[in-house]
Formats: sequence, C-alpha cells, structure tokens
Amino acid sequence: MKKHNFSAGPCILPQEVFQKASAAILNFNDTGLSILEISHRSKEFVAVMEEARALALELLGLTGKGYHALFLQGGASMEFLRVPYNLMKVDGKAAYLDTGTWASGAIKEAKAFGETVVVASSKADNYTYIPKAFEIPTDANYFHCTSNNTIYGTQMNQFPETNIPIVCDMSSDIFSRSLDFSKFDLIYAGAQKNMGPAGTTLVVIKEGLLNQTGRSIPNILNYQQHIDKESMYNTPPVFAVYTSLLTLQWLKNLGGITAIEKNNEAKAALLYNEVDRNPLFKGTAAKEDRSKMNATFLLENEAHKTLFDNLWKEAGVSGLNGHRSVGGYRASMYNALPLESVEVLVKAMRELERIA
Amino acid sequence: MKKHNFSAGPCILPQEVFQKASAAILNFNDTGLSILEISHRSKEFVAVMEEARALALELLGLTGKGYHALFLQGGASMEFLRVPYNLMKVDGKAAYLDTGTWASGAIKEAKAFGETVVVASSKADNYTYIPKAFEIPTDANYFHCTSNNTIYGTQMNQFPETNIPIVCDMSSDIFSRSLDFSKFDLIYAGAQKNMGPAGTTLVVIKEGLLNQTGRSIPNILNYQQHIDKESMYNTPPVFAVYTSLLTLQWLKNLGGITAIEKNNEAKAALLYNEVDRNPLFKGTAAKEDRSKMNATFLLENEAHKTLFDNLWKEAGVSGLNGHRSVGGYRASMYNALPLESVEVLVKAMRELERIA
Repeated sequence: MKKHNFSAGPCILPQEVFQKASAAILNFNDTGLSILEISHRSKEFVAVMEEARALALELLGLTGKGYHALFLQGGASMEFLRVPYNLMKVDGKAAYLDTGTWASGAIKEAKAFGETVVVASSKADNYTYIPKAFEIPTDANYFHCTSNNTIYGTQMNQFPETNIPIVCDMSSDIFSRSLDFSKFDLIYAGAQKNMGPAGTTLVVIKEGLLNQTGRSIPNILNYQQHIDKESMYNTPPVFAVYTSLLTLQWLKNLGGITAIEKNNEAKAALLYNEVDRNPLFKGTAAKEDRSKMNATFLLENEAHKTLFDNLWKEAGVSGLNGHRSVGGYRASMYNALPLESVEVLVKAMRELERIA
Repeated sequence: MKKHNFSAGPCILPQEVFQKASAAILNFNDTGLSILEISHRSKEFVAVMEEARALALELLGLTGKGYHALFLQGGASMEFLRVPYNLMKVDGKAAYLDTGTWASGAIKEAKAFGETVVVASSKADNYTYIPKAFEIPTDANYFHCTSNNTIYGTQMNQFPETNIPIVCDMSSDIFSRSLDFSKFDLIYAGAQKNMGPAGTTLVVIKEGLLNQTGRSIPNILNYQQHIDKESMYNTPPVFAVYTSLLTLQWLKNLGGITAIEKNNEAKAALLYNEVDRNPLFKGTAAKEDRSKMNATFLLENEAHKTLFDNLWKEAGVSGLNGHRSVGGYRASMYNALPLESVEVLVKAMRELERIA
C-alpha cells in the first residue's frame, strides 16, 4: 500500500529524488563508482557542490545580489552557535524572538556570548502564536527569528523592518513560499524538511556581514573560512549535498518557489478547512499564524483517539502524531507531499465524523 | 570495467554495503518508506542508532568497559574544537604530537583555549616520520595524537605510556588493526575511510573523563549533552549512520578487526615490497613508520609519469594521485579494498619497469 508520509522531518522527498539517489549509490554519473566512494575533490563532486550552491541562491532569487551559499554540517543547532560566534561583537548585544523550542535553543547558545535580549515570547501560551508587537534594540548586532515552528504549527507571515541585520532559521519552511529573501542577512536551514536528507545545513550569508566582531572564532565555526574554501573547508557530507541538489533540481523543474507555493497553499487550505469544519477536531495555533508546513490539531473528544488512529493508519498515513509538548496530531505538508496524501487524511477525518 | 578505487577518502566501501544502502533508499526494512524520509525518532531508526553505537564498541573490544560511543556531525575537524572545549581546564594545558596537516589543524583549534604544548613535530622533514622521543608534561589535561597520517603515509605503531588521558584522532585507520583501545580515553574518527560515507564522526569517550574543566561549553559542542541524549541531541545524519552500521556489520561478519588486519597486512606487504623492489619507485615515508592504510611513493624519474599514469588508468585504477604537499602517488588501501586491486596496481608498476 502507498504510504502517505506526514513526518515532521526527516520527511518525504520527491520520489524521483529517491530513485536517482538510489541509482547513484551503485553508479554515480557513469563514473563506475558509488557517490559514497568518490573523492570530494573529484571534478564530479566539485561540480555537484558548485551547482547546489548556485541553485540554492537562484531559487531564493539571490543570484548576483552579493550572497554566499554554504552546505555545512551539524544541523540548525550548530548554527545556533555559529551565529553569535560570527556576529555578536565583544561586549555586543543580540535580539531574539522566542517562538518555540528551537528559537529557545538558539537563545540559550547566544547567552554565553553576550547580552541576549528576548524581544518577545509566546512561551506562556505554549507558543500557540507569533508575537507581533515588539521593539528591536537599535544597538543590537543582529535580530534572530525562526520563520516556521514545526512543533507548534506556527509560521511568521511578517518580518520586522529594521536597520540591523536579520538572521532567520528557515529550517522548516525554506523553499516553500515566496519571500523577499534579500531582506535577510543570514538564512540557515537544516536540509531535512524541504531540501534533502538529514546531514547538511544550508547557510546563506550576505557579503559585508562578517568580520566585525573583534572575536576570535574557531576555524570550523568561522563562516569566513567556509566561504574562502568554497564550502570545502573539510570533507563535506557528500551524499547529503548531492541529494539536496537533486531536490533543488526537482523544484526548479517544477517551476521554483512560486509553483510549489501554490501546491502548498492548496494542501494547507484543504486540511485547515476540514479542521475548522469538522466538529470533532480543533486547531491548536492562532488562525492568523497557522503554518502551511505543519498543521497541529486535536480531537475535541479524546475518546475518539483509537478509532481515528486506526482510520488514518489503515489509509496508509504515517508520521501524524503530534510532538509530546503539544499532543494530538501534526500533519507536516512539506514540498514533496502530494495533495493526494492530504485528501486521504481529510477522508479519514470525515470518516471519523460519520462513524463516531 | 571494474574500478580499483584507491581514493584517500571518501573511499571504497564494501560492495554489499552499496547494494543494501541503495535498496534502503527505496524501501527501508520493509517499512514502505525510504531511509531518507523516516523520522529519526521512529523505532526503526532508534534501533539503527543503538546497534551502531553498540557494535562500534564491540568491534573495538570496549563493551562493558565504561565507554560511550556517539555518532556526531562535522568531521574530525569539529572534534579538533570539541576536544579542548570539553577537556582543557580553565588555565589548563594540553599536549599535542604534530605528525601532519590534521594534527596541526587540531593544535590550531586548541591554542585558543589555553597553553598548547607541541611535544614533538616532524614538520621540518615534511612529516615523513613519527617522532618517538618526546616527553609529555605530567600536568597536561590530555595528550592528543593522530594515529595515521593520510597525506604523508605514516602511522603510529606505539603510543606513549602516560598517566594523563590520551585522545586520538583515528579517522584514517580505525577498525583496521588490533590495538588495546582501552588505553585511550577519547577516540574520534570521521567515518569516510573505514566506517562509512562522509557525514558522520564516531566519538568514543571513557566514563569519568568529562565535566572537569570549569569551562562553560556550548550545548552542541558538549559531549555530555550528546551522551545524555543518546547521540540524538539534534537530528542525526540518519543515512550516514545507517550506512556506517552496514559497514560495521560487514566487518563483524568477516571476523572483526583481527580478520581484516590480516588482509590489510597482506595488501600493504604486497605494495611496499614492490615499491622497494622496483628500481623505478621509491617510498616517501620512513620505513618503520609506513602506514598500512596509505602508501605514498614517487617515481625515481619524473619522465615516466605519463607512461605510468596511462598504465594504471588503463587497468581501472582510480584515486592514485598523491596529495599536493607530497606529490607522486598515494595508494589508500582501506578495509574494503580487495587484495585484487593491489595486485592490479603492482602489475602496472611491473609493466612500467618492463617497458620504460
């Protein structure tokens, strides 16, 4: 039976990416070698890295606008550390918006480096909304935010207008919607949602942002080192970068972000309409802040849980359990999830209403 | 034509590992899902992580001896940083042996943390040998060495007897030879030689070693955090860990380190015998320090280069060019390289002698 994978990440990737990645493990680009055994310094892999870096910028509309793209290791959690190391001045200050577990993790790492101002937090309400009224200190070295909060099902629709650099963790919604990405000075995203498998992190950095802290930065954490070495400071995660390239190529062939955004809006509308219409369910996030990537919802009556769980599992749905801190259900509808999968889930919700 | 892959890393892995990894990308363990799209919190992947951690300790003979095994991200270069962060006390001191480019990289990162004593270095001789007469300061917090030097073709055959903790970068010879691994307090190794594809690093840590520095450690760099979270502090590099497990399983089925060591000795003997016998070649490393993983050698007469390069390329050999800092040739003979590949290379060397 076909699986409908709503996993929050690692998550579904395009089927053609699975096919191509699987084939490349046996014979990469007719080299007679596996993608797993080629040197990262081979001309074949250098071409992969360069195309992936260029295509990431192209899809974000940043080609020729003075940005560098890197494929690093360590997940977004490593960037929680690299960001203050590279951007917070000695005796400096940074501003953070606290919209969930990951934003909070970024704040924790920053605090060791200097004054870390939390401009607003929705923690007291279990992060069910995105704070909107806040002031960013004009003397902060940067403002950090998280564009989409996987666990809580919220997403930022507006970003502040400010003169200080904006840093954004876009791990769970990069390449899913149109934004003016040139408003951001540093964007990072773990690959394992819309871009590829777990094991690499895209970092996009505007020229002129670095080398202003007066701080000594360890080489492996120094963005400038990675830029100078063209994302090959040390052995990169070859397979994760290659599979990310395949996914970016798939997105480009589909028509890029504007094309996938229409799919994502259709999927989210279908599911949220059912959550709102069906009297057996309720959403957990504030409506105006609902994420188009991760829809979080609860049963009105917990007594229906076994029945509903059987319905969606029998329909081939997987990965629907909510994070333990929210409970209920979380339907992650990343780029590669087909509309058909959401239709199957909605059908199960309607079936519950009919028989419960 | 069959390829004989002598690449220095990423490098050849067992053919059955390629087959299994390729298949798992289409359908992992009959879940109907790709290994690339399953949650790292799924019971299927948690089982992979736990088996990989346990099997790494088992193969090293460390089961039940108070060690933790972690699969982290960032390559050995990230451990160059994690080691002093976690082990060098505030106002403390560390001792390093400088045997090559990577040892030197580790020393650079350590220097930012405190007094870093280089107990000996063979840099003045382009790292062609392993220094043996040196004293380790008894008040150092740890002694750091690199067991095998990929670029220079040298390998440590003896490790110092000392009362201070020994930290060893075994990236390029772990799982290749029998050692009393319980003499080491911390071992780390990038996977991309004998353990798996690029993208994960094995770190083995003795209990009681950590939490003695008085230093504040960023969460993502804190070994204790990774131990407490069972190597799942954040999303691990799922595919790289899975493929490492496949490689470790292959090694266990083969008979473990003692079995592979015999193969490795036979391969190294065959090649070094030819380097020494054939008047057209000469080795670059001191004989007593020759690496059984990476054999570095030169042509006596550079005029033979085109002829020899054609011979080995026509025989299907790849990845034989030496590192730019040594020149000539480097034959990397990692665990998965069959003896047959070395025979093909030796045949090309003999053919050169016949026709040159």
